[in-house]
Amino acid sequence: MITTDSIGRFSIPLLIGAEDALGAGQVSVFLCDARDDPIREQYYLRTLLGRQVDGIIVTGRRTQARPPIGRSLPVPVVYAFISSTEPSDCSVVPDEADGARRAIEHLIAIGRRRIAHVTGPEHHHSATVRAAAAMRTISAAGLEPAAPLLFGEWSEAWGRQAAGILLSTGADVDAVFCGSDQIARGLSEALQEAGKRIPGDVALIGFDNWDVMVDGCRPALTSVDMDLEGIGRTAAELLLATINGEPAHGRRALPGRLVPRGSTAVNVF
Amino acid sequence: MITTDSIGRFSIPLLIGAEDALGAGQVSVFLCDARDDPIREQYYLRTLLGRQVDGIIVTGRRTQARPPIGRSLPVPVVYAFISSTEPSDCSVVPDEADGARRAIEHLIAIGRRRIAHVTGPEHHHSATVRAAAAMRTISAAGLEPAAPLLFGEWSEAWGRQAAGILLSTGADVDAVFCGSDQIARGLSEALQEAGKRIPGDVALIGFDNWDVMVDGCRPALTSVDMDLEGIGRTAAELLLATINGEPAHGRRALPGRLVPRGSTAVNVF
Repeated sequence: MITTDSIGRFSIPLLIGAEDALGAGQVSVFLCDARDDPIREQYYLRTLLGRQVDGIIVTGRRTQARPPIGRSLPVPVVYAFISSTEPSDCSVVPDEADGARRAIEHLIAIGRRRIAHVTGPEHHHSATVRAAAAMRTISAAGLEPAAPLLFGEWSEAWGRQAAGILLSTGADVDAVFCGSDQIARGLSEALQEAGKRIPGDVALIGFDNWDVMVDGCRPALTSVDMDLEGIGRTAAELLLATINGEPAHGRRALPGRLVPRGSTAVNVF
Repeated sequence: MITTDSIGRFSIPLLIGAEDALGAGQVSVFLCDARDDPIREQYYLRTLLGRQVDGIIVTGRRTQARPPIGRSLPVPVVYAFISSTEPSDCSVVPDEADGARRAIEHLIAIGRRRIAHVTGPEHHHSATVRAAAAMRTISAAGLEPAAPLLFGEWSEAWGRQAAGILLSTGADVDAVFCGSDQIARGLSEALQEAGKRIPGDVALIGFDNWDVMVDGCRPALTSVDMDLEGIGRTAAELLLATINGEPAHGRRALPGRLVPRGSTAVNVF
């Protein structure tokens, strides 16, 4: 398993899922960290092939398509979390658009109509995919976004700043879908410091379902879970099938799930 | 590199440090996750030996001593972050007591005299080592702890609860050293909700220097950094020396460093 995720927050759950699929004590999974460095990556690839691995899972920090790691390799390769630009390569990715759709539909289901979206950098694939799906879902419900789309950073500090923008422009917002849990946490704290009640005045949804962030938020944060372990498991199963003579091809997008918590819990009575 | 750290927050920085020491493109480092499971660990050990690795770094989630991974192995082994119970084995660990001492001395240096300590579970090695060193340093300065030692969980929720205990018992506290950044963040938020100013009324220090937590705190959190990358680097250097015929033995404890931020920034004027 070759990764570029130097934080490990995404690659470790993928690794655990892959191990679960392959069976403890039967297949070994090794993680190598290529750090977005193509030379390092090629070096690891040669070393893994030299050590006679049976297959390779390539992963990374971002979900966008990347060039194939090699051509005519002697062992099968599956891309997990990221996809290969070569359509016949086998890739397993999260369906981020589906996750964003679930978030918006949940907000509409609890009666919210004035929904804003705050997310990460505009050049980041995940930010644009989630934002586009959020906007489509808002439109499909016959609504308008309650504020202009806010692109920024994947940080709590940006969430706080975005709260300031929404408040100072006087946007009439009753829900914010955020592109990450960190953004949502910053937004949650800043809105409450400004006297807004969560979820009474503004309902909030994050993305990633990162335990440390969703549990640290008060109230706890509703979030979209990309099922990283499921992606790791599926990638490993497809790799195993290919090793066993049933080659897998093409891109599979796995649906996420919405995990509801206090930040969207509305009392009906 | 064999780990039991399924979160990756500790093992990934160790991996990066080890890679830096060994040189990109010259030595490959693989991470395997044994998940606190001795059978899985032995399986990985056999697989690594079968694939003819040159050396093994064993790490884990906790800093306490663990039994050796094997006897009379054909390749050198270095323990990193954890230590081996066999004294002749080579181990590189953080000097957690030294880190706790630095935290208390920093609080004393900024004029605090009524210091409390809130930390993780009493059965956790890191909690007891840090607590004992904190208490020793408080005594050595001729002070008494401002409140009974509070053992709990490694979580923000426990930090909030501990703030409630300190406030409800009316303890006269002007500084709290916390056993983790998460505990400190919960404490920081709860103290401020109760009207206390940080650091004016209560100065705060965490432990781990976890970027997400220290930057998320308001004011930003002063913390103790265990230099995980340095531990990984040193472990890899000692492994390389052993491979090259200069065997390393015994336990090395690397000092941490205190990273001062807003939660202990006191205006002198």
